[in-house]
Amino acid sequence: MAQQERAIRTRRAILEAAGSVFDESGYDSATLSTILERAGVTKGALYFHFPSKEKLALAVLNEHVDEVQAPSQPTKLQELVDAGMILAHRLSCDPILRGGTRLTIEQGVAKHQRRGPLLAWRDHNLQLLTEAKERGELLPHVVLEDTAALFVGAFTGLQLMSQILSDRADLEDRVVVMFNHILPSIAVPALLGTLDISADRARDLMGKTLTTHGG
Amino acid sequence: MAQQERAIRTRRAILEAAGSVFDESGYDSATLSTILERAGVTKGALYFHFPSKEKLALAVLNEHVDEVQAPSQPTKLQELVDAGMILAHRLSCDPILRGGTRLTIEQGVAKHQRRGPLLAWRDHNLQLLTEAKERGELLPHVVLEDTAALFVGAFTGLQLMSQILSDRADLEDRVVVMFNHILPSIAVPALLGTLDISADRARDLMGKTLTTHGG
Repeated sequence: MAQQERAIRTRRAILEAAGSVFDESGYDSATLSTILERAGVTKGALYFHFPSKEKLALAVLNEHVDEVQAPSQPTKLQELVDAGMILAHRLSCDPILRGGTRLTIEQGVAKHQRRGPLLAWRDHNLQLLTEAKERGELLPHVVLEDTAALFVGAFTGLQLMSQILSDRADLEDRVVVMFNHILPSIAVPALLGTLDISADRARDLMGKTLTTHGG
Repeated sequence: MAQQERAIRTRRAILEAAGSVFDESGYDSATLSTILERAGVTKGALYFHFPSKEKLALAVLNEHVDEVQAPSQPTKLQELVDAGMILAHRLSCDPILRGGTRLTIEQGVAKHQRRGPLLAWRDHNLQLLTEAKERGELLPHVVLEDTAALFVGAFTGLQLMSQILSDRADLEDRVVVMFNHILPSIAVPALLGTLDISADRARDLMGKTLTTHGG
């Protein structure tokens, strides 16, 4: 058991080192030797968990969506907002998320593999929106697939713009603007006023439930 | 005059070749020899117009916004929609726009230079929104700067997502979804119904006024 825990911790250290190297250098320029040096693990340990740079990149990409879990809320739309605000907040500090983002955005990893995080995230939104619809939270005309994909695309571009213009310092503000512009088109009016869409939302939530994630 | 025309045509041929090479290979892997071969110009002509790869990349980046000019319309919000729809349409065929997009999205060109197209486009939106406000087209609570930047960020991400998932085949549909979700939050209701937000909008406009651009 202690050995299994050590393996999990080693795998995590490698993923975090890989995320930060992919974030800084991109896929093509990243080297396994830089990653293992930063992770502080042996070459044997690295290859045991990830037999190639490509496998390592895929693991970083796939970790992306699992990283963001918002706690249960009275409405599904609040959970949708919370997931976006938590992701915005964690992009400022989580090396795996940052690395996965650059791998998704830039060409380098094969295109069919860059789809993974986008589709997983869209499906996550679709699930929340489907439940929101069943609970009567949505206006009748909403096309769930369109709205689910719009949030993914819009967020992806806003984080890129925020990275270029402010090193992501204004990302949470930009995501608040996005929700404030889009939610009135999908939420029933009575619910709209109950949503907490503030730039501090992630910090408030993390203070309560996400402290174990560190950051 | 004939000589000047030839110089303009040569410069254009170089920019288009550079755009397509930057689009395919990214900044770091693009070479001047590939570009001049594709442009069908001599090394002397290339260096006369652009003394370095960096200068060439900057010219492609700066051409970006000038490429999209929407014709005058009865409302400024329609012009804002039209500019977005034309940009979406032209991204499927214009090598300079495609190359400029990849240069903006990917790290490679210095960050302060990648800001140019984003800021120019935000300013273009801000100008249109300012005029829209003066004409009474906007709801009173709209914060012009926020909305202007939101359109740039959201569009940037949607085109990236569309490129990854469908080689931009569904981009115009995705941009329609974006406008349909955001415009109800900013336009006065009486105007909203007058806007033409359809995936064929760019083709309709280009049939009338943009045929000289080719594409």
